[in-house]
Amino acid sequence: MPEVIGIGLLGVGTVGSGVVKILRDNASQIAQRVGKRVEIKRILENNESKLRSLGLTEQGTNRYEDLLEDPSIQIIVELLGGIEPARTYLLEALGRGKHVVTANKDVVATYGKELFAAADATKSDFYFEASVGGGIPVIRVLKESLAANQIQAVIGIVNGTTNYILTRMGEEGIEFDAALCAAKDAGYAEADPSADIEGFDAARKIAILASIAFNTRITPNDVFIEGITRITPRDISYAQELGYVIKLLAIAREQDEVEVRVHPALVPENHPLAAVQGVFNAIYVQGNAVGETMFYGQGAGQMATASAVVGDVMEIARNIETGSTGRFSCTCFYTKKLRPWGQFHSKYYIRLVVKDQPGALASIAGVFGNNRVSLGSVIQKRTLNMAGISMAELVLITHDVMEQDIQDALTVIKGLSIVSSVENVIRVEGGEQG
Amino acid sequence: MPEVIGIGLLGVGTVGSGVVKILRDNASQIAQRVGKRVEIKRILENNESKLRSLGLTEQGTNRYEDLLEDPSIQIIVELLGGIEPARTYLLEALGRGKHVVTANKDVVATYGKELFAAADATKSDFYFEASVGGGIPVIRVLKESLAANQIQAVIGIVNGTTNYILTRMGEEGIEFDAALCAAKDAGYAEADPSADIEGFDAARKIAILASIAFNTRITPNDVFIEGITRITPRDISYAQELGYVIKLLAIAREQDEVEVRVHPALVPENHPLAAVQGVFNAIYVQGNAVGETMFYGQGAGQMATASAVVGDVMEIARNIETGSTGRFSCTCFYTKKLRPWGQFHSKYYIRLVVKDQPGALASIAGVFGNNRVSLGSVIQKRTLNMAGISMAELVLITHDVMEQDIQDALTVIKGLSIVSSVENVIRVEGGEQG
Repeated sequence: MPEVIGIGLLGVGTVGSGVVKILRDNASQIAQRVGKRVEIKRILENNESKLRSLGLTEQGTNRYEDLLEDPSIQIIVELLGGIEPARTYLLEALGRGKHVVTANKDVVATYGKELFAAADATKSDFYFEASVGGGIPVIRVLKESLAANQIQAVIGIVNGTTNYILTRMGEEGIEFDAALCAAKDAGYAEADPSADIEGFDAARKIAILASIAFNTRITPNDVFIEGITRITPRDISYAQELGYVIKLLAIAREQDEVEVRVHPALVPENHPLAAVQGVFNAIYVQGNAVGETMFYGQGAGQMATASAVVGDVMEIARNIETGSTGRFSCTCFYTKKLRPWGQFHSKYYIRLVVKDQPGALASIAGVFGNNRVSLGSVIQKRTLNMAGISMAELVLITHDVMEQDIQDALTVIKGLSIVSSVENVIRVEGGEQG
Repeated sequence: MPEVIGIGLLGVGTVGSGVVKILRDNASQIAQRVGKRVEIKRILENNESKLRSLGLTEQGTNRYEDLLEDPSIQIIVELLGGIEPARTYLLEALGRGKHVVTANKDVVATYGKELFAAADATKSDFYFEASVGGGIPVIRVLKESLAANQIQAVIGIVNGTTNYILTRMGEEGIEFDAALCAAKDAGYAEADPSADIEGFDAARKIAILASIAFNTRITPNDVFIEGITRITPRDISYAQELGYVIKLLAIAREQDEVEVRVHPALVPENHPLAAVQGVFNAIYVQGNAVGETMFYGQGAGQMATASAVVGDVMEIARNIETGSTGRFSCTCFYTKKLRPWGQFHSKYYIRLVVKDQPGALASIAGVFGNNRVSLGSVIQKRTLNMAGISMAELVLITHDVMEQDIQDALTVIKGLSIVSSVENVIRVEGGEQG
């Protein structure tokens, strides 16, 4: 058995440099904990100056074959991101019997099945802890530590950008656009922030978590997605008055059917997820034995993500050492039924502006009632004068209702002459806590 | 290879019954996830009615040899608690090459070294996730997921009884004794609550966590311990005014030397640990790569603890399946120096009653200054009339100071004629968060 575990690194951007740093700074304890030294043998990277700054010029190459054909490389660490060429590279590596560690949520969420099949064919390991929640070890927790449980719900704050934006909006009362600018200034949002603010990033992550939690393949296309661009400081402020905070939640639940969705939601302020601030992530998991748990930490960033990558490398090194690679394979044993969007259940926060006249509320309540939507509370927030007409802003919280019913009711309500506008409709979640 | 993984169960009390229930209720998914059925073969239990109520009369025996000598039993699950006979039973099991899962913090904290040595000798597995934090998978997280890190600090709320008591005191303003009674009534405190309220239970748990985090053997005797019996509603209320909550913390830190201690502490209200309410537990871990993380859940209780036990059983089953038992052995590679108690550093909250006369504060501040204790803030809370003498209650918060210095200062201060009493001295922790 080799005395050294050899790594082939695809890319030395931010996270890759972090991996290099950890393998250097913590080298002796990693060797002690794994029983072998872990060394970077080759790096696929065009940017010579990056390699030079890390003192790794010799390891650099722009031919992937140099990694594939190097027998001293047992583990390929992929940090390129995006679908291609990552997917092809990983399939080739697994096909040759090399083990794979990746932080690439896109390729895992969409091509997980294919990648696991390739790993199985050569009894290779395929690990991806860093693809969800950065340094938070939620994937291994779901696969191993909580394996005795039937998982009932996974509810995550898995996108730091949107959590930062919502935190700033809540703390400072600023508009979404201003908070997005602040996030860009702080380096927490990209020039094109749509993957974050529209919920696509969170959808990929919850697809991965749901697949593991419920042992059935969920891809991003199975996820209902709604972003945070319509959230206003007024909604956040009203939510606060009612004892809630607004978070972008990634939710996966199994109850008869599986449902997976990403959307902003009012979360009770005493729920563990409510305290997750700024760019931090947290994943709340409810199991039929363990009850409520939550796992909290930095969901992104160089060193936190690299911590998860190197943790996976060390686990594979132990598998190599003990001859037990392939011990964790695909866990999507079943093909479970997905709940259609219209049959989701939730409470709703609804903010609307109506003419301030007798009977207005009765009309609205009547439409909700006709559509099986029962109201928990109705609060008149303020009166407005719009072009000489006196208007009232109402905030309603419904009881638990079916998505299709609320949408049907809202369609009718928008057509009522007494209704000026439906300002916002936001789900209320986290009631499990009781 | 056997088609069934056989379990020998020591004790079917609360947690044992939970283990039986999980193995029944989640049987098909456990078999799917592990690749084998997991079955309870024999149970060491004198109480026939317990066995009957679980429908396991046939498995019952009062001879431990019946478990040891049964070749169909690969894993011994020990849920007896306490040192003996648990320690002897476990050593015998490991000596025979049987794998062990235990929830017994006492035996792990005190005899971990001996038990690991016995496991090593026969290449057996020795797992104890349930011994700390109930269903929270903190041990596997430290050993595996965060293995790439140098751990800097582990700060836990690891005793649900005391957290429940402090939560009730904070919410209702009741005295310690009343909250303790409430905890007994709710079934959260034992008739003799001293192991919980004096901090001994937390000390065993942090000894286990510190040993893993810092790769050096820490036993309960190495832990500085102070309980919560002297905390008053007044302290909790003043702490709240200053932006803190009071928690019983179990703290392990490595900075040059290792320090391990259990004591009540003021925690900033925006620290993740501050939001942990009632009987819930949480373990905050800071690593040099991952940064801040926290793991939250039920720290005790039948099903949460059983979830961790069965999770360990499943991991061992996978090790058996892949021929990799013994893959995780003792990780106490080093013998690190422990920081002596007098050299601990902390901020301090000090509440004292002094004569309300000119120069009183100057005298006190002078004594602190002479002992290298620098004061961050001094707040006069109220004046009191005691036997005709006007007194002032002061609350001081120090800057970061050395334990020996604060104790020296307090000895002098208690002797000052203007000082009526030093009402309480509580450390302030959780400043890592910035």
